[in-house]
Amino acid sequence: MHGLMQDRPLSLPMLMDGMEHRFSRKHVTTTQPDGTVSASYGEVAGRVRRLAGVLDALDVPAGARVGSFGWNSQRHLELYMAVPCTGRVLHTINHRLFTEDLAYIVDDAADDVLFVDRSILDVVRPLLDTCPSVRHLIVMDDGSPAEPSADPRVHDYESLLAAARPVEAFEPVAERTAAALCYTSGTTGRPKGVLYDHRSIVLHAMTLLMADTFAISEGDTVMPIVPMFHVNAWGLPYAALMAGADLVMPGPVMASDRLVSTMAEHRVTFAAAVATVWRGMVPHLDGADLGALRHMVSGGGALPESLSRVFLEKTGLPLRSSWGMTETSPLVCSARISSEEAATLSEDDRVTALAAPGPPTMLCSLRLVAEDGSLAPRDGEHRGELQVAGPTVAAGYYGAHPQPSAFTEDGWLRTGDVATIDRHGVVRIVDRTKDLIKSGGEWISSVELENAIMAMPGVLEAAVIAVPDDKWGERPLACVVPLPDARLTAEDVRAHLAGRVAKWWIPERVVMRDGLPKTASGKFAKAALRQSMAAGTL
Amino acid sequence: MHGLMQDRPLSLPMLMDGMEHRFSRKHVTTTQPDGTVSASYGEVAGRVRRLAGVLDALDVPAGARVGSFGWNSQRHLELYMAVPCTGRVLHTINHRLFTEDLAYIVDDAADDVLFVDRSILDVVRPLLDTCPSVRHLIVMDDGSPAEPSADPRVHDYESLLAAARPVEAFEPVAERTAAALCYTSGTTGRPKGVLYDHRSIVLHAMTLLMADTFAISEGDTVMPIVPMFHVNAWGLPYAALMAGADLVMPGPVMASDRLVSTMAEHRVTFAAAVATVWRGMVPHLDGADLGALRHMVSGGGALPESLSRVFLEKTGLPLRSSWGMTETSPLVCSARISSEEAATLSEDDRVTALAAPGPPTMLCSLRLVAEDGSLAPRDGEHRGELQVAGPTVAAGYYGAHPQPSAFTEDGWLRTGDVATIDRHGVVRIVDRTKDLIKSGGEWISSVELENAIMAMPGVLEAAVIAVPDDKWGERPLACVVPLPDARLTAEDVRAHLAGRVAKWWIPERVVMRDGLPKTASGKFAKAALRQSMAAGTL
Repeated sequence: MHGLMQDRPLSLPMLMDGMEHRFSRKHVTTTQPDGTVSASYGEVAGRVRRLAGVLDALDVPAGARVGSFGWNSQRHLELYMAVPCTGRVLHTINHRLFTEDLAYIVDDAADDVLFVDRSILDVVRPLLDTCPSVRHLIVMDDGSPAEPSADPRVHDYESLLAAARPVEAFEPVAERTAAALCYTSGTTGRPKGVLYDHRSIVLHAMTLLMADTFAISEGDTVMPIVPMFHVNAWGLPYAALMAGADLVMPGPVMASDRLVSTMAEHRVTFAAAVATVWRGMVPHLDGADLGALRHMVSGGGALPESLSRVFLEKTGLPLRSSWGMTETSPLVCSARISSEEAATLSEDDRVTALAAPGPPTMLCSLRLVAEDGSLAPRDGEHRGELQVAGPTVAAGYYGAHPQPSAFTEDGWLRTGDVATIDRHGVVRIVDRTKDLIKSGGEWISSVELENAIMAMPGVLEAAVIAVPDDKWGERPLACVVPLPDARLTAEDVRAHLAGRVAKWWIPERVVMRDGLPKTASGKFAKAALRQSMAAGTL
Repeated sequence: MHGLMQDRPLSLPMLMDGMEHRFSRKHVTTTQPDGTVSASYGEVAGRVRRLAGVLDALDVPAGARVGSFGWNSQRHLELYMAVPCTGRVLHTINHRLFTEDLAYIVDDAADDVLFVDRSILDVVRPLLDTCPSVRHLIVMDDGSPAEPSADPRVHDYESLLAAARPVEAFEPVAERTAAALCYTSGTTGRPKGVLYDHRSIVLHAMTLLMADTFAISEGDTVMPIVPMFHVNAWGLPYAALMAGADLVMPGPVMASDRLVSTMAEHRVTFAAAVATVWRGMVPHLDGADLGALRHMVSGGGALPESLSRVFLEKTGLPLRSSWGMTETSPLVCSARISSEEAATLSEDDRVTALAAPGPPTMLCSLRLVAEDGSLAPRDGEHRGELQVAGPTVAAGYYGAHPQPSAFTEDGWLRTGDVATIDRHGVVRIVDRTKDLIKSGGEWISSVELENAIMAMPGVLEAAVIAVPDDKWGERPLACVVPLPDARLTAEDVRAHLAGRVAKWWIPERVVMRDGLPKTASGKFAKAALRQSMAAGTL
């Protein structure tokens, strides 16, 4: 028997009502090299309707992909709304990828038009000639010097907006309609596209507003430091619009000291970034007034406890871990302490607890699958591959490519992460399946080794990879970056590890380096490290 | 273009995962005359699987209606889960209705089996003979004296559970499948059934967890005082299970003093009831330790500011208003103060602000329709009929009856309430359309008059209705119940109103009474007052 409730889709036009009525006086503020710009949500909503008119005027068909190359900004926010609200698909692209990957991604998505921040234009302009699907390039002024273009396919965002006829009413959008496209960073093989729908984006934003997730509220000032090309900035722009929270967008002003001063100046209450970006801010925390902050999320990779302790000491708040993937919208887990633990944990233990990814949101089902295919128990001890299901989780990849083995036969996503789950549902990532080190038939966790090394005084960063070993099969190799003034030897590192990890985990090979390669999204580029190792340059 | 996210339904079996894993050690506690019983969610989940087996053993078909007559209790919670999770429909029924209405409702729903608390059995047993659809009656022990039955159609809940084979895996339930049925209290015409689906119940519960709605969290202890037969206890049982919050169920122990002591004893943090029930608690607040409370919701009718001030004085917290209907799941609006207002409002003004229904949840769209059919502006001044749309709002009524004019041609629900909406989205109910008083061509708000009278020292309750008047068309009549020791005359009431409302609003007719008739859900029974008036007994 069918229920008799209204058939109203979960779709992004729902957010327009709040922007235009309840929250019309809330603001999005964007930092640019030439100053700060701010606009009310009422003004942004008006520009979203004009931008929708621009897409019509450019004859962008329904369902077409609209590529964006941009920093976090008000204009990028306008694209986040106008493109999906008119039935098109916003394809956000990481401009830091190699040129070859950029061309591949734009071709694979068959982007119809591209929007680009002026400071990124040099990277993107060649695509007009190499990617046949691209008909127009629209340039957004982000404060970098202007350079006129005679190419008739190149337009100015503000000129188009000024000339546009605003779309007064958005047609209803069915909730399974595609809304956004984001490619995985492609650590294995070619980048693969994940195609979000309106339903998954709205449901994901709803979970970010929940008390035990991020509790994003109308009273918040949300600063997504994580880029808007990185899995929809973890859904934070949509969550802020849904809640009516103010937004602070760092624009191209991404230097660590400026991120700290932007948070202080705008009384940011909620911020999110990857661990390496948080780490970069550490030298600038002293003297900064970050008293408005209530919640800092670290994601996109393991959160070293030691880093979180530095934040606790300098800001009064620890960082909170989270876990997700491009394929999961992305949020699956966010760190929190259960009421049972809250009653007993010391402050020290709380920092440890909040450095684990935490329990899943109510939309995601988790399971741990052992090597023999059986389900591992949720006792905080047994390990297994973490698999995820839910309406915010991908069922496959975009395009006609052969689908990789990322999905099980019963439709769950295989995350490639090895994890434990405890009785409170708290997930702890032990390792990437491919980053685990199998030594003498036993597993060594590269993540645990890295955390142990990064907790050592004088260490800035550390990455551990597996190297072939005649006797043991594989052995760990640690690449360690000392702090500028620290005098640190490989022997010091091994001495530090003694007693902190099992004796047979201690790497014979410890390499001291000035820096570590990072991926375009700021994670340690272990694939590059392995290549250097194989090439004998490590 | 379709998105490529997993096709996972929003359905109640999602909640089982939390009950059995993350929150298995959280508790539901039920107050009974013979003591307090408590069970962990892990235990409750096991009993839900057994209860599902009972429904199978009784051959209750898929889609069949399972009637429940019960207080708020653990067993009623088990029905809330087992019935919809197995594709049947839980039909909660208010046993305080007239016998004739009960028989009408059970017949109209064609209930297949009935579950009944033993203390209510006398009211329900006759339905076995008068309602041909009912095959079984299952009696739940709520601490009232047992009375054996020789009728083979009458069963004992615990005996059936003990003998049942638990259902290990619930089949997937499509999200538009009917889950619950509730009849409107029927102030006009016959009661009408509202048929909720899994999707609407899950989405509604998600909104209750949001920071700016009720922010229900794992750390909460939630006490739904509002009955589980009254629009799913406003969705609180499902919200608590979703968040993993503890539940405190008052069972049949509904005396005002016991409600207060139950809240104190179990350190309740969140409670919800209709205004008349909150009012009843006032004499018992002195000396009660309610320090754990963080949020008290009043709904089901206007919240008099004066009542909220009493709670602020005695507990440190004002009551917070909310607004909804059986047709809206029910929550549409919940009182909150915007960050802009929070910066300027005095504590006194905050109490006033929180006595208004407040802004809508993100799932509900609102509009105000003026008498001429035009949309009234959202300026806090213009009035219109409040109309609602959204996935948690009914599209029609259950059954083959002619559909009343409660829905507009474009599918919005006509609420019958006259309201204003301000620039923060805050709804203020001016009156029921049928309770407005048209005097000399101008509207008088019975709600505003009632609030003005109830703010007078010495007044317990007041209700205002329209009476025919030769000169003015209609005039207000006020029925006033003084506090036990207060000496109050009609002239005192009129003197109090002078200067507080427009002169022509002051009722010539003020009747002092010992009490007021209430509906089965605790609201003032204005229909009954009008009948008394017409019959000359007022």
